[in-house]
Amino acid sequence: MGRVTERRRVIRIRDGAVSARPDTLVAEEPLEIRLNGKPLAITMRTPGDDFALAAGFLVSEGVLGRTDELANIVYCAGATKEVPVVTVGAPPAVAGAGAGAGANTYNVVDVRLAPGVPVPDVTLERNVYTTSSCGLCGKASLDAVRTTARHPLSDGPEGPMRLEPALLSSLPDRLREAQRVFDRTGGLHAAALFSADGELLDAREDVGRHNAVDKIVGRALQQGLLPLSGTVLMVSGRASFELAQKAVMAGIPVLAAVSAPSSLAVDLAAETGLTLVGFLRGASMNVYAGEQRIALREPAAND
Amino acid sequence: MGRVTERRRVIRIRDGAVSARPDTLVAEEPLEIRLNGKPLAITMRTPGDDFALAAGFLVSEGVLGRTDELANIVYCAGATKEVPVVTVGAPPAVAGAGAGAGANTYNVVDVRLAPGVPVPDVTLERNVYTTSSCGLCGKASLDAVRTTARHPLSDGPEGPMRLEPALLSSLPDRLREAQRVFDRTGGLHAAALFSADGELLDAREDVGRHNAVDKIVGRALQQGLLPLSGTVLMVSGRASFELAQKAVMAGIPVLAAVSAPSSLAVDLAAETGLTLVGFLRGASMNVYAGEQRIALREPAAND
Repeated sequence: MGRVTERRRVIRIRDGAVSARPDTLVAEEPLEIRLNGKPLAITMRTPGDDFALAAGFLVSEGVLGRTDELANIVYCAGATKEVPVVTVGAPPAVAGAGAGAGANTYNVVDVRLAPGVPVPDVTLERNVYTTSSCGLCGKASLDAVRTTARHPLSDGPEGPMRLEPALLSSLPDRLREAQRVFDRTGGLHAAALFSADGELLDAREDVGRHNAVDKIVGRALQQGLLPLSGTVLMVSGRASFELAQKAVMAGIPVLAAVSAPSSLAVDLAAETGLTLVGFLRGASMNVYAGEQRIALREPAAND
Repeated sequence: MGRVTERRRVIRIRDGAVSARPDTLVAEEPLEIRLNGKPLAITMRTPGDDFALAAGFLVSEGVLGRTDELANIVYCAGATKEVPVVTVGAPPAVAGAGAGAGANTYNVVDVRLAPGVPVPDVTLERNVYTTSSCGLCGKASLDAVRTTARHPLSDGPEGPMRLEPALLSSLPDRLREAQRVFDRTGGLHAAALFSADGELLDAREDVGRHNAVDKIVGRALQQGLLPLSGTVLMVSGRASFELAQKAVMAGIPVLAAVSAPSSLAVDLAAETGLTLVGFLRGASMNVYAGEQRIALREPAAND
C-alpha cells in the first residue's frame, strides 16, 4: 500500500536550537468494515493488511471462527453519497484536489460470508465495535465474551504449555526488533505472535494496538490457523479488557504485555483460563492468571 | 466512587524468585452513555467523573457546546433486560452473587439536553463514537470535524499565545506528578489542562486516554468554561486524530504529547490552526503545526 508512513514538515527544538525539516509519521486513516455489503464499523488504523484487519475484527466479534466461513474480502469503490472527492495521502486542506468521485480510497472493505453462514445480528443498531464489551458492568462484559467464544483456549497438540520465564523475558526485545516502522515514527503499537517454543509466527504494527492484534488474528484465519492453540500473544503497552477479549476469541492461551493490565482484563483471564502476564520487563514479570502455563521454579504461596 | 483501583492476586517473578501477593490494578468498567434516554455509546473506562466523561464525550461529538445546553446528567438504575445480576467490583466468576435486579451499577448515565436544544441525529444507527472520525478517507474525517466544530480555537483575552519552550518542557513532569493513581497501578493514561502561563487547571486519569480528555472537557463544560481558549492540553503517550479532534471541539488551541503524532492528527492540526507538539521530552520537542504559538528563539527555515 505504501501508506504506512507519511512525510510532514516539522519544527524541531533541541535545547533551544530550532530547525525545520521533513519528518516521518505513522499514517492514520479511517477504515470502514462492511459485512455482506452492510456498514458495520469504522476504525482509525494504519493502512495495510486491511483484509486481515477486517477478518480479525470479525473474529474478535464472534462473527467468524473458521476459514471456510469467509467467502472473500474486497475493497469497495469509494463512491458514497456525501463524501467529498479525495486523494489518498493528499496534503490537508487542499480543496478540490483528488481523483474523480467513485475512486477507490482503499478505506472501505466488504467482508462476504460463505453461503449458508448466518449473518449475525451485528448491525449499526448495535455497534459491535464499542459494544463488543457491552453490558452495564464488568460481569456482563465477561459473560458476553464467554457466550460468543468460538474456540476453547487450548495448549495445543504438544500437551500442556510450560513456558520458561526466560523465554517470556526474551519476547519484548523480539517484539521490538520486529517493529520495522516504529524506529522511523515512534508512533506505532505492535503485537506479535509466538509459538510455545518462542518462534516468531507473525508481527504487526498499527496506530491502534487493537488493530495490530486484529491483523494478526485475521491473517491466521485467512491461513486456516484458528484457533491459535499453543501460542503466545505479546503486545506493546498495556493489557486492556479488549485485548484480552481478542486473545480469547482467537483461542490464544497466553497474553503477555509490557505494561499493566486492567482489573477487567484480569477478571476475563481468570474466568476463561487465559494466562495473563503483565509488566514483562527483563527478568521480571507479573502473572495475573493462568499460572499453570508458566514454569515457576518455586511453588507460589497460596493465599 | 472508590472504584478507581481494584485488588487482585498476582504472582511476581523477579529474577527467578516467585512470590504471590495482592496487587493494585486500575479499574476498568463499561459505561453506557445515553442521550435523552436513548443509548448512544458504550466506552470502557475507569469509574469516576462519569458525568464529566459523558458531557465531554458529547462535546467531542459536537452535541454539547455550551453549559446551558445541558439540563442534567443522572445515573440510571441498572435494570435492563438480559443483563445478569451483578455486584460492582465483585470478584470474577462468582455466579449468583450481587444485588437484586435493578440495582444501580453506576455504569449507565443519561444526559438530558436543555428544553429547546435539538437532539442531533446521533443515534446508534450512526454510532458517533467510532464514526466521529467517519468518512472514507482522512480528508473526510477532517471535514467532519470542521463542520461540527462549535468553537474557534482562540488564544484568549490576553492576546496571542507565545509559549516558551521551557514552559512546555516542564509539563510532562507536572502531568506525571498529577497522576496519583498511576504510581500504584502503572495502568493509567493521563491528561492535564494548563493555562498559558503554566498553571495546572485540571488533570484526569483513565484506562483510556480519550476518556481522560473527555473528563477534562466535560468538567470544563459543567463549570461554564468552554471554549477553553488560551489553554494547553498535555497528554501521556501519543497524539492520535481522536485526541486532536477532542482538543479542537473544546476550543483548546494547543495539544502537547509525550510521544509521536499520527499523520492525520497533524493534518487536522494544520487545517484547524491547532498547535500540535509531539515528542515533548526534556528540552526537546517537535512542533508539527501552529508554531506561531511557540516562542522560537531562531526563526524556522521556510521550506
